[in-house]
Amino acid sequence: MIIKKAEASDAKAIAAIILPTIREGATYALDPNMSETDALAYWMGPDKETFVAEENGVILGTYYMRPNQAGGGRHVCNCGYMTSAAATGRGVARRMCEHSLEHARSRGYQAMQFNFVISTNERAVRLWQSLGFEIVGRLPAAFRHPTAGYVDALVMYQHLSAPPR
Amino acid sequence: MIIKKAEASDAKAIAAIILPTIREGATYALDPNMSETDALAYWMGPDKETFVAEENGVILGTYYMRPNQAGGGRHVCNCGYMTSAAATGRGVARRMCEHSLEHARSRGYQAMQFNFVISTNERAVRLWQSLGFEIVGRLPAAFRHPTAGYVDALVMYQHLSAPPR
Repeated sequence: MIIKKAEASDAKAIAAIILPTIREGATYALDPNMSETDALAYWMGPDKETFVAEENGVILGTYYMRPNQAGGGRHVCNCGYMTSAAATGRGVARRMCEHSLEHARSRGYQAMQFNFVISTNERAVRLWQSLGFEIVGRLPAAFRHPTAGYVDALVMYQHLSAPPR
Repeated sequence: MIIKKAEASDAKAIAAIILPTIREGATYALDPNMSETDALAYWMGPDKETFVAEENGVILGTYYMRPNQAGGGRHVCNCGYMTSAAATGRGVARRMCEHSLEHARSRGYQAMQFNFVISTNERAVRLWQSLGFEIVGRLPAAFRHPTAGYVDALVMYQHLSAPPR
């Protein structure tokens, strides 16, 4: 598996990964009915760096990185990761997250923050914890899950270097 | 003091309030060098409802409201408030926040979240707490303050009705 910058020609493969997840509406706080154009504009927008995980010429996953805030918050980045349904359980998300942590350091980011990890997405929560993220916030009933009803969302955070002073 | 929807003709007065705060860079994670056009596009953008607090025809403060997330997170709103430097200490922020809580309920929002309250802004933290907000998250060293260095940012949250199930 290699991870590399997404190119415009990857858009179709990226859409095939992110649209089913968006439509399901269970793990990302995005409009489930958003158009493919809007979804790609969101995932590959000019404010983001977008990557793909590829194996034997097939794109298995994708992630983006962006500054989580502007101004005095620009030293903290945010990422989103999605894996092809066909490739779940093969460590694609883990590989992408490890890549993103390394890339974030190379970019000079000092921390990485996930703003809205759905608490029912236990697999993701455990994965991020195993990669060094801590739960630093809990947003009570902040997400309306399509089947589980109102559930908490978590804020997760990781310093990428010694905490700055 | 009355609080009412901002109109396009209020833009100049709004800019006179928000630009000094943005330039100072001590309380909002926004680019301190952003243009007046960009600042107004941010504060009065189509994704937001914008209000002004007015007394004797003078605008003393302004706030915006927007959904904090899309999709399954749309029932939680987010607001930002700024008061004219000349009007600090007169309860303008408190009045605007009270107005926003009432307006949010009328809009059907079930909670209000502040994503990034700078911990050194103690006056604001105490005010929000006195109005029912709780600190539900702490982002370590997530804000680079222009004089205090790296400081924590707080996530604050308030249910507007009985917690949904």
